[in-house]
Amino acid sequence: MNLSKRAQNVQASPIRKLMPYANDAKQKGIKVYHLNIGQPDIPTPPQMIKVYQEFSDKVLAYGPSQGLDIYQESLVKYYKKHDIELEKRDIIITTAGSEAITFAMLVVANEGDEIIVPEPFYTNYNGFATMASVKIRPITTYADNGFALPDVAEFEKVINSKTRAIMLCNPGNPTGAVFGREDLIRIAELCKKHNIFLISDEVYREFVYDKLTHTSVLSLPGYEELTIMVDSVSKRYSACGARIGCIVSKNKAVMEATLKFAQARLCPPTVDQLAANACVYLPDSYYEEIVSEYQSRRDLVFDEISSIDNVICKKPSGAFYIVAKLPIVDAEDFVIWLLSEYQIDNETVMAAPAEGFYATPGLGRNELRLAYILNKEELKKAMRIFKEGLKVYRKKMK
Amino acid sequence: MNLSKRAQNVQASPIRKLMPYANDAKQKGIKVYHLNIGQPDIPTPPQMIKVYQEFSDKVLAYGPSQGLDIYQESLVKYYKKHDIELEKRDIIITTAGSEAITFAMLVVANEGDEIIVPEPFYTNYNGFATMASVKIRPITTYADNGFALPDVAEFEKVINSKTRAIMLCNPGNPTGAVFGREDLIRIAELCKKHNIFLISDEVYREFVYDKLTHTSVLSLPGYEELTIMVDSVSKRYSACGARIGCIVSKNKAVMEATLKFAQARLCPPTVDQLAANACVYLPDSYYEEIVSEYQSRRDLVFDEISSIDNVICKKPSGAFYIVAKLPIVDAEDFVIWLLSEYQIDNETVMAAPAEGFYATPGLGRNELRLAYILNKEELKKAMRIFKEGLKVYRKKMK
Repeated sequence: MNLSKRAQNVQASPIRKLMPYANDAKQKGIKVYHLNIGQPDIPTPPQMIKVYQEFSDKVLAYGPSQGLDIYQESLVKYYKKHDIELEKRDIIITTAGSEAITFAMLVVANEGDEIIVPEPFYTNYNGFATMASVKIRPITTYADNGFALPDVAEFEKVINSKTRAIMLCNPGNPTGAVFGREDLIRIAELCKKHNIFLISDEVYREFVYDKLTHTSVLSLPGYEELTIMVDSVSKRYSACGARIGCIVSKNKAVMEATLKFAQARLCPPTVDQLAANACVYLPDSYYEEIVSEYQSRRDLVFDEISSIDNVICKKPSGAFYIVAKLPIVDAEDFVIWLLSEYQIDNETVMAAPAEGFYATPGLGRNELRLAYILNKEELKKAMRIFKEGLKVYRKKMK
Repeated sequence: MNLSKRAQNVQASPIRKLMPYANDAKQKGIKVYHLNIGQPDIPTPPQMIKVYQEFSDKVLAYGPSQGLDIYQESLVKYYKKHDIELEKRDIIITTAGSEAITFAMLVVANEGDEIIVPEPFYTNYNGFATMASVKIRPITTYADNGFALPDVAEFEKVINSKTRAIMLCNPGNPTGAVFGREDLIRIAELCKKHNIFLISDEVYREFVYDKLTHTSVLSLPGYEELTIMVDSVSKRYSACGARIGCIVSKNKAVMEATLKFAQARLCPPTVDQLAANACVYLPDSYYEEIVSEYQSRRDLVFDEISSIDNVICKKPSGAFYIVAKLPIVDAEDFVIWLLSEYQIDNETVMAAPAEGFYATPGLGRNELRLAYILNKEELKKAMRIFKEGLKVYRKKMK
C-alpha cells in the first residue's frame, strides 16, 4: 500500500524530533530545562478557567461555522483597542491559528502556487503548505541585522507568475523580530503592485518590548483588499490547549470563501470559544504584567547569550524567542550532546536547532532558537548550563 | 484580487443554505421544527459536562500531537468492547471527525487522485476533498433498495489508475443504511485486488436498530494494511461542540504519516479530550437508552413517511436519518415553500434537500433527508405538518 507523495514528504516537527533524547535524559533522572518549545509557563487567566468550570449547557451543541456570535462581537471590541476597526463579518473563528493559516493558504493559492515567506520561519508553515499543496518560497533574513525585513528588491527577485501572497509573522517566531509600520507599508505596496495578498500572522501582537507598539496589517489604510490576518489566543493568554484562533480580513470575497471552508468542518470547539471570550475582558494590567515579565526574561537570556564570545545575536524586540548564531558547526549535534552527555548538578538544557526553521537547505545549521518560557530563576540555571556546556563542547570539538 | 479556483469552487453547505428562509419564518413568529440538521437534542452525559466543571489546571497547555495519553488508553478499551483490538499507536486523536477525514485523504491521495464514495454521501466530504485537492468519484445507490451497497462490478467500472481509496460511511449519513460484514469483506477484497485503501467513517457505530450489530472495517482479519477508520464523539455522546474525533489504522506507515500532519497543527483541544475521555466509562445502559430512543423515533418517522402515497423509502437500520423520494419534482422548492408559505398552528418544518448529498448532477432533486433528532412529541407535530404540507403543495403544483 503506497501512501501519497505528500504523506511521504511532509516534514516531521523539527522542534519535537529531538524529544527522544530529552526523554532518555529524564529516564536517567536528569532534569531538562525546555527552552525548545513555545509552551509558556505563565498561568492561564483564572477568568478563563472559570468559564470551563461554569459550563452547564444540557447539550454541548455545534456552534455557527463562523464562530459564536458573542465571541465575534467581543473580538470586534478587542481589535478596536488595537486601532483595528472591524465588523463581525470580517472575523471567522478557527480551531487555533493553525486552521486560520491553512484557510488563508487555501483561499489565496491553488495547488502548486507559491507563497513567499521570510526565513527562518515558524516551521509548521511547511506542514500547512504541504496540506494545501502550496509551495513556500523562502527569502532569507539574517542574524547579523536582527533578521530585518529584506529590501523590496529582494522580494521582487522571487516574485513570479505563481506567487499568490507574501506571508509575514510579526512579531516573529522564531526570530523575535518586529516589523514596523514603514516596513509593512513597503511590503503592502509591493503586494498591491503585483496583485498578491499579504498574510500576517500576529499571534504575538502584545509581546513587543522596549515600549515599541505593534502595527497590524489590518490597520494600513488603502490595503484592505489584500490583507489577511491570522491570530490565536494560545500565547496571548497562555491557553495553547484551547485551540482557538481566527482569520480576519476586510476583503468580503476572502471571508465568503473562508466561510465555505469553515462550513465543511462545521465549527470550532464551543466551550473553548466561551473561555477565550472571557479573556477579551481582562484588564490592561494583565498584558502589562506579562509583557514586563517576558521583557525581563528576554533581557536575561540576551545578556547571557551576548556574553558568549563569537556569538551573533541582535536583541529581539518581540515574541518570546531568540535565535543565536553560535561558534560551532552543527547546532543539532550540540543539542543532542547537551541532552546525552552534559549536565551540571544533574540538570541540562534543551533548545531548538534553527535549521528546521529555514527552507533553504544548509542554512541555520549553526543557529539555535531559545524560547524564554520559564521563570527567571530557572532561566538563569538553564543559561548557565547552556554557556558552560558550549565552552566544554567547543573544546571537545577542537 | 483573485481568489484561488478552489476558493471559488468550494461547495457552500447545502444543509445550511436554506437557513435564511428558516430565519425569516422565525422572525415572523413561526416555530420551525428542524429536521434538516444532525444536531441531536439528547442531553450530553452529565459525566462529560462535569469534566469541564472540574478542570483546574494552572496552565491550559498543549497536549501531544497524537492526543492525550490517557484518552488514547481509554479508546483502546472502548474499541476492545467493540471487538477491535488496538494499541495506542494505532490511534491519533483529531479535532472532530472532520480533521480525521481530511488527514485520511491527505495520507492516501495526491493532488488530483480519486476516492470512490457511494452517493448520496455526507455533503462535507466535498469540502474536505476540495481542501485536499482530491476528486470524489461517486457511485450511485438508490432509495428503491434502501441505498444498498452496489455490486463489485459497479465499483470496478469507476476504478482507474488515479483511484486511491473507497470511502464508506457506515451507518450511513444521509441514508441510514448499515453495511454488514459480508458487504464489507466484498469491498475490502476489491480494495486488496486493486491495491487501494478502504476508509470507513463510523461515527454512528452505536446507532444501529432492530438488534443488528455493527461491523467495523478494523475487525476484518487480513485487511489490516488497507483499512483506515475515522470516528467522532459528536453524535455518540451528543457532544457536537466538543470537536473530538480520531483516525485509526493498524497500518504503521499510515499512522506515522498522519502523525506528521498532526504535528503541524500541534494538538486537538485539551479540555475537550478530557471530557470525551469520561464518556468511555459510561455504563452500557447509556447506549441502550439512546439506541432505544432513536429506534422508536425512526419507527415514528418511517411510519409517517411510508403512509404517504407514492413515496419511495425503505426502513433504514442506522444513524438518525431517513432519505425519502417524494412524488414531487423539486424537493428544495418544497422546503422553501414550507418555510415561506405553509404553517399549521403557526408552526412549520424544515428538512434537507438531498440533491446536495449527490455528486452526480441532477440526482436527488426529488429526495429529502429528515433527521430524527427531536423528541417524539415534537416529531409527531413536525411529521403532521410535513404530510399535510406535502398534500397541499402537490395540489398547488398540479
